[in-house]
Amino acid sequence: MKAYIHIYTGNGKGKTTAAFGLALRAAGAGMKVFIGQFVKGKTYNENVAITRYLKNIRVKQYGLGCFIVNTPTEGDIKAARKGLDEMSKIINNGKYDLVIMDEVNIALYYKLIDIEDLLEIIKNKPEHVELVLTGRYAPQELIDKADLVTEMKEIKHYYKKGIEARKGIEY
Amino acid sequence: MKAYIHIYTGNGKGKTTAAFGLALRAAGAGMKVFIGQFVKGKTYNENVAITRYLKNIRVKQYGLGCFIVNTPTEGDIKAARKGLDEMSKIINNGKYDLVIMDEVNIALYYKLIDIEDLLEIIKNKPEHVELVLTGRYAPQELIDKADLVTEMKEIKHYYKKGIEARKGIEY
Repeated sequence: MKAYIHIYTGNGKGKTTAAFGLALRAAGAGMKVFIGQFVKGKTYNENVAITRYLKNIRVKQYGLGCFIVNTPTEGDIKAARKGLDEMSKIINNGKYDLVIMDEVNIALYYKLIDIEDLLEIIKNKPEHVELVLTGRYAPQELIDKADLVTEMKEIKHYYKKGIEARKGIEY
Repeated sequence: MKAYIHIYTGNGKGKTTAAFGLALRAAGAGMKVFIGQFVKGKTYNENVAITRYLKNIRVKQYGLGCFIVNTPTEGDIKAARKGLDEMSKIINNGKYDLVIMDEVNIALYYKLIDIEDLLEIIKNKPEHVELVLTGRYAPQELIDKADLVTEMKEIKHYYKKGIEARKGIEY
């Protein structure tokens, strides 16, 4: 079965959760899933459920946490490059049917990783490996290579009412 | 903790999977989740994974399958109304922290259910119950009541290349 490249981008809620929902669907169909999370450093609650119950999904973080309000440090860059390197091997060995590069667009946007390296990974991936790339600011070069691109567009958001992120809903 | 109303709408991929990803996150945080699926009649692969491994998520279908190419029948209407009725009770009893009404917007669009009944459920819901409504064509009256609305906008879709829906990825 030929596999495809998906992108979930845009400023709305639902990019990472859509990727995780897809992982759940794929796992239910017996596929093996790897989720690598760029930028993010802590363990989110979706990962708790996965690690505990869903044996054919593996999740790993390649970030130090959120730097959006600050400038990325050398440590952020190092963590993201290590992630890209590891994920390149994981994609290439073909053991996982679905590979999710969560927030990889953010890693590109902040120049933690080089788009040429990512395009190279995409170009050389085994045919059966489905690839999902998430995060705001997906660059046009990446969109050009993708088969399926969805923009999650914020129409209304309660953050604007001053509500804080809540456990189980936002993280 | 006060809870909110989310809507995932639009013509792009990722509405149902975003809701399921949110269910996974909530389950990881120890919340109880109920997912009712309008229109959909068969068991999807995300449900297989949930039923097998995630004990604090319950999924139920309230549809006869896809009628999008045809006109809804009396059977479709009956199934959807039964769903709304059951879910109204489930929301009201407050036992579930997160309730997902998957494809409820489609049920509204095809007039299987009455928007007034849904607005009544929303108005009377217990404060702690988080509600997620998915499906294309969310009506403005519903958007007005929601706290968080995301439009999944199709930028590029491989269906247009004539690729058929694949197990584990589309269903």
